[in-house]
Amino acid sequence: MNPPYEVDPWRIRETELDLARLAQTESVFALSNGHIGVRGNLDEGEPSGLPGSYLNSLYEQRPLPHAEAGYGYPESGETVINVTNGKIIRLLVDDEPLDVRFGDLESHERVLDLRAGTLTRRMVWKSPAGARIGLTSTRIVSLTQRAIMAIHYEVEALDEETQFVVQSELVANEPLPGPGRADPRVSAVLMAPLVEDEHFANDDRVVLVHETRASGLRMAAAMSHEIEAPGKMSVDAEAQPDIGRVTVATRLKAGQKLTLVKYVAYGWSSHRTRAALHDQVAAALAGAELTGWEGLVEEQRAYLEEFWRGADVQVEGDPEVQQAVRFALFHILQAGARAERRMIPAKGLTGPGYDGHTFWDTETFVLPVLTYALPDAAADALRWRHSTIPQALERAAQLNLPGASFPWRTISGQECSGYWPAGTAAFHINADIAEAVARYVDATQDEAFAREIGVDLLVHTARLWRGIGHHDLNGKFRIHGVTGPDEYSAVADNNVYTNLMAQANLRDAADVALAMPEEAARLGVTAEEAASWRDAADKMLIPFDERLGVHPQSAGFTDHAPWDFLNTPPGDYPLLLHYPYFDLYRKQVVKQADLVLAMQLCGHAFTPEEKERNFAYYEALTVRDSSLSAQTQAVMAAEVGYLELAHDYLAETALMDLRDLGHDTANGLHLASLAGAWNALVSGFGGLRPDHGTLCFSPRLPETLGKLSFRLRYRGSLICVTVRPNAATYALYEGEPVQISHHGEEHLLDKEITLTIPKITPNLPAPHQPPGRSPRRHTHDPFHDQGTV
Amino acid sequence: MNPPYEVDPWRIRETELDLARLAQTESVFALSNGHIGVRGNLDEGEPSGLPGSYLNSLYEQRPLPHAEAGYGYPESGETVINVTNGKIIRLLVDDEPLDVRFGDLESHERVLDLRAGTLTRRMVWKSPAGARIGLTSTRIVSLTQRAIMAIHYEVEALDEETQFVVQSELVANEPLPGPGRADPRVSAVLMAPLVEDEHFANDDRVVLVHETRASGLRMAAAMSHEIEAPGKMSVDAEAQPDIGRVTVATRLKAGQKLTLVKYVAYGWSSHRTRAALHDQVAAALAGAELTGWEGLVEEQRAYLEEFWRGADVQVEGDPEVQQAVRFALFHILQAGARAERRMIPAKGLTGPGYDGHTFWDTETFVLPVLTYALPDAAADALRWRHSTIPQALERAAQLNLPGASFPWRTISGQECSGYWPAGTAAFHINADIAEAVARYVDATQDEAFAREIGVDLLVHTARLWRGIGHHDLNGKFRIHGVTGPDEYSAVADNNVYTNLMAQANLRDAADVALAMPEEAARLGVTAEEAASWRDAADKMLIPFDERLGVHPQSAGFTDHAPWDFLNTPPGDYPLLLHYPYFDLYRKQVVKQADLVLAMQLCGHAFTPEEKERNFAYYEALTVRDSSLSAQTQAVMAAEVGYLELAHDYLAETALMDLRDLGHDTANGLHLASLAGAWNALVSGFGGLRPDHGTLCFSPRLPETLGKLSFRLRYRGSLICVTVRPNAATYALYEGEPVQISHHGEEHLLDKEITLTIPKITPNLPAPHQPPGRSPRRHTHDPFHDQGTV
Repeated sequence: MNPPYEVDPWRIRETELDLARLAQTESVFALSNGHIGVRGNLDEGEPSGLPGSYLNSLYEQRPLPHAEAGYGYPESGETVINVTNGKIIRLLVDDEPLDVRFGDLESHERVLDLRAGTLTRRMVWKSPAGARIGLTSTRIVSLTQRAIMAIHYEVEALDEETQFVVQSELVANEPLPGPGRADPRVSAVLMAPLVEDEHFANDDRVVLVHETRASGLRMAAAMSHEIEAPGKMSVDAEAQPDIGRVTVATRLKAGQKLTLVKYVAYGWSSHRTRAALHDQVAAALAGAELTGWEGLVEEQRAYLEEFWRGADVQVEGDPEVQQAVRFALFHILQAGARAERRMIPAKGLTGPGYDGHTFWDTETFVLPVLTYALPDAAADALRWRHSTIPQALERAAQLNLPGASFPWRTISGQECSGYWPAGTAAFHINADIAEAVARYVDATQDEAFAREIGVDLLVHTARLWRGIGHHDLNGKFRIHGVTGPDEYSAVADNNVYTNLMAQANLRDAADVALAMPEEAARLGVTAEEAASWRDAADKMLIPFDERLGVHPQSAGFTDHAPWDFLNTPPGDYPLLLHYPYFDLYRKQVVKQADLVLAMQLCGHAFTPEEKERNFAYYEALTVRDSSLSAQTQAVMAAEVGYLELAHDYLAETALMDLRDLGHDTANGLHLASLAGAWNALVSGFGGLRPDHGTLCFSPRLPETLGKLSFRLRYRGSLICVTVRPNAATYALYEGEPVQISHHGEEHLLDKEITLTIPKITPNLPAPHQPPGRSPRRHTHDPFHDQGTV
Repeated sequence: MNPPYEVDPWRIRETELDLARLAQTESVFALSNGHIGVRGNLDEGEPSGLPGSYLNSLYEQRPLPHAEAGYGYPESGETVINVTNGKIIRLLVDDEPLDVRFGDLESHERVLDLRAGTLTRRMVWKSPAGARIGLTSTRIVSLTQRAIMAIHYEVEALDEETQFVVQSELVANEPLPGPGRADPRVSAVLMAPLVEDEHFANDDRVVLVHETRASGLRMAAAMSHEIEAPGKMSVDAEAQPDIGRVTVATRLKAGQKLTLVKYVAYGWSSHRTRAALHDQVAAALAGAELTGWEGLVEEQRAYLEEFWRGADVQVEGDPEVQQAVRFALFHILQAGARAERRMIPAKGLTGPGYDGHTFWDTETFVLPVLTYALPDAAADALRWRHSTIPQALERAAQLNLPGASFPWRTISGQECSGYWPAGTAAFHINADIAEAVARYVDATQDEAFAREIGVDLLVHTARLWRGIGHHDLNGKFRIHGVTGPDEYSAVADNNVYTNLMAQANLRDAADVALAMPEEAARLGVTAEEAASWRDAADKMLIPFDERLGVHPQSAGFTDHAPWDFLNTPPGDYPLLLHYPYFDLYRKQVVKQADLVLAMQLCGHAFTPEEKERNFAYYEALTVRDSSLSAQTQAVMAAEVGYLELAHDYLAETALMDLRDLGHDTANGLHLASLAGAWNALVSGFGGLRPDHGTLCFSPRLPETLGKLSFRLRYRGSLICVTVRPNAATYALYEGEPVQISHHGEEHLLDKEITLTIPKITPNLPAPHQPPGRSPRRHTHDPFHDQGTV
């Protein structure tokens, strides 16, 4: 199979329409600004893989059924809904509807332009009756006007005079493909989640207002149009409860074009009235009309230019990865840019996967990218977490714990996890949030944020850890019965990742209480309490297996039976679909980096020798059934010196969606895997490890790459790091000097400095993965040479 | 509050009708033969606490919903259904229905006679209009005619001539009290589980045939009547799909009586046709009619006389316990007598609690009683397990395990547990079944059973253990990730109970393979395989905490945080209703005996000092939120010398249902707690520990008891053990001499022998329980002095 998209440094382009991959391409071509998200569905609505239009945090509640109930189980879940679809523009060519499944699609192209921030479709189609037309549509979800999506739609009669009827629509409760979920009640709720409040049509303009049935959230969608045609045309608008339609009819001679600009505005609220929401979207439309199509396009390009100036990553020697990392940065920007104190879901707003929930992935994998590329968006995501502190305090109290317990998965801030051993028990999410706070504050010195947001998050999570853990008879501080990142283990004692992250959380909270005594007093933190955090951190138990010279992922892990990899057929992956949790949990098999992630995020806790031994030990057990894993393995492979292996893992995470490696891009992009492209490059080959005011780098390239260059914003400055095989150049582009370290050597970067890169030779034999689970050798056996990917 | 029932050695009698406790009394007064079970509902059907008529293993399927699905989760559950109610006899007195909520109930009595096997109700009632009547009804569920229930019903006009209309009914799909379950789908299925196949009425006879909707089981109920009245009467029969009715109308002068004998026959099958089932119940009716009421009563009494001859337990010094242990034995007999290769549910056939499922309780707590009291019933229960081997093999394969994995809860043999950490992971049930097999074979030397049933159960479970466990680097055999008996811990490594029981299972299987080479060959057991079982058993890891000198319940348990008992208010028990599993699992708090049960069942693995230390350690952590716990604590308290404490625990388990100590007797009796009365007396104060051909006793009475006497059937003999404060007398009543041991001294019991009892003085301070969780001091502060129980 050819690569589905052209390899191009700044564009994602397809030139053939493969209906079997339609849903996947809709995710890849999704546009979003973090507030609105629209999948790359074809303008005419059909065929579609999975229709999707989303508004951040607009969800419906649904019951969470339990075969056996338990205290503290969430009884209500939240699911992102497919909101009123404003993308649809149907076209009747003479008397036949444009439908690419019929007639001849003579040419087809879709292009996602990463600098323009637009999705453009060009096609030539001959209707079954023989009318040839050209269609060019360009779609934009504005990064500058948060409520606005717009489409520039142009049709042309190519050969002869043709009658065109364009129906530009707003469609609520559009049917979704079944069978979907096993539980009929879920589908019942979600198949028509919107209840009509108002429908209004006038001239070329329609407004539809709806409410969700159970969650009681109100949304409005509005559209207006600018239409140009060379001859006579008629324009009609009509509205019904679930549909609004503006119909334009005209005749075009060969070579003539009908041009239509469709502006769509969205708004939602849990508080505002129908009238207020109606006015809000009408006002947004007026603003967009004033800016005009060209204005929106210009604003978009300018916004992106500024983004790329501070965030671009260049890779020489691997054009696929070059494309993928920019694609990744673009989608992370889209997810976070205008989320504005709403959460960033695991799939962004590109699909309904994971019910539209956010998980720890955002803080741990996505926010590092935003922190150094678009710090305000990182702050906003953490402000959203801060806004959910009341629910987290309540949840902790329900769980018999002090402090705040943030949900494993949620939209609103309520715990929505239906399986506590892999949900509630994964308390590490609280330390992950704290780490994201500390990282952001270190990277920005954002004092106001630290006072208003950071201290609360750090203190409430530290209290949680102090309450979850306990001292044993030897005075060690233990954290029992929790689940680490690896989902093939659960409810274990002294998970090294969790304990180290909690240790940092406790220390950061104690530090901030010392640094901000007024804020600490506001939260009732006493010196005794802060001292107890420091004590718990100092006494934190980190299990180590002396016999093997490695850290067990959790206490006792290295005594578990090894997984029988030799007798596990390739078709049995992902294992969770073929083996019970019972079997997975009690054996040495790792879904995703856990101890290895601890070595990345808490590197000081390990000696170089331990890192090397641990890496090899877990490499042999890790099956990467989670798309989160490859990037961490890439980072640590690079650190311990397996640079080609790191490159393979980099390619796996970077190409997860462009090559659909997980076979589920159809339901939305894997935002954390996309972030992984940046993490693998910047933290892997760049060796970035921020350390309290110093940006530490240990850059090192595999032989396959000639150059890696990336930009970081840090404390108001902008720096560029350029890594070549033997040396790295650090340049200060903007702002005050920055304290850096290069392979352990400290420097104050005030202009530009080039430093040589020491060689590394691993001490151990090359690590191996479970049989059949090695990453594809990217450089030697690229994906596009494979029959299947 | 007065004790609800008169204290009487052979009867359970109430003399006041307390409508608030109606459901509870219906469980206590339930009649069953193991095939049919009928709750002690009032004849006239209303008022009722919970109407209930059950047929062993007649269940309906229902969906088991999961908020998050997982591989191997059961998707379908099974629930016992309330079958066609044959108990109902309504009465119209003049023109007013007999309803004890109206008019005056001048006297009321219900008596369960443990020697007659009957439930008799006597009452005098004055209707709101002033008619005084006497009513005596006696109900029997025949232990000799398995398909038959019969009611002798007599009404008398006490003061004046009165018109009586008696409506004797069969009612299918009778309404059950709501709201019941949270999941509406469950109720939807279970509220009207029966679909009509046939209804038939003729003379005084009605037959109703139904099928269950989803499980496709067919049942038939039939009734016929013998009616006597002094004067003119009319008799009519009618049937509709869900109701059959025989109406008798007559007038009685003062002192005259109407007598009606109602015979009800039940049958069900998954295979037989409607016609065959119809004929089956009609034939059963014909048999019962031939025997006649008096005949049924005589057969019943003779059956029970033989039972009590072999099973009676006498206690001097505690009349409440005396009554309770006979009540217990009676209900265990009722549950097991005629179950005949069907399972024995946790509630017997006395109520719908636990969905009518059977659990490990049956093998571990109920079968010991049956093994020594009614061995054929124990064999039948194990034959039922044997019949489910195909499902257990399939389940094991699904779980990636060799051998057979029996379900945690089931009716048909399919796993019905909706929460795997406390269901599937509790693999000890497999060793519990194996232990029950070994116990039965030891107690009976039933060679045919051993060949046909025993060897299969032992071999398939041994294979499971060999597959679940693994050797570690030190060569120790470990069993990781399983749940022991204590449900406040789950999915732990090297649970001592599980490992010791598995060890015995592996050895018993290896022994039986050696003893029965042909059977072993039939099952494909090689010498290598049997050797691997012995090796695994020999190398079994049993964790021990050297610092504390106690066995951790599972590896790491003694390093868990202690539960904060001081800050747990009394209203927070049972803890599982107020704390999440997450919190319970990771702390030192014990729902029910686990390590302490291991000390009872695998006593050889512990030194006396270890038993004493372990007992004290776990006593301080055990909250007895499970009704299974007290009996084991009684047994081990007696063994380590805390005889008064043992008596308190004995009383708790013995009076669980007669005093409704768990506040859920309404849903059915706790069969395992009832068995606990016997276990606490016989294994506790009698110190019974069977040991491969020797019945070992270490009898010892608390000062509160003057004498304990019990009978046991063993290898075809019947012995009686009489324990007095200073000596025990062993008498052989029937059969060949029996090898016994008395406090470690071996004797061949060939007639009668009296041996003195050595004194015991515990070495440690008296153990204490968690605050507020001590058992009530039974002898000093009896239950009937308490305001509430």
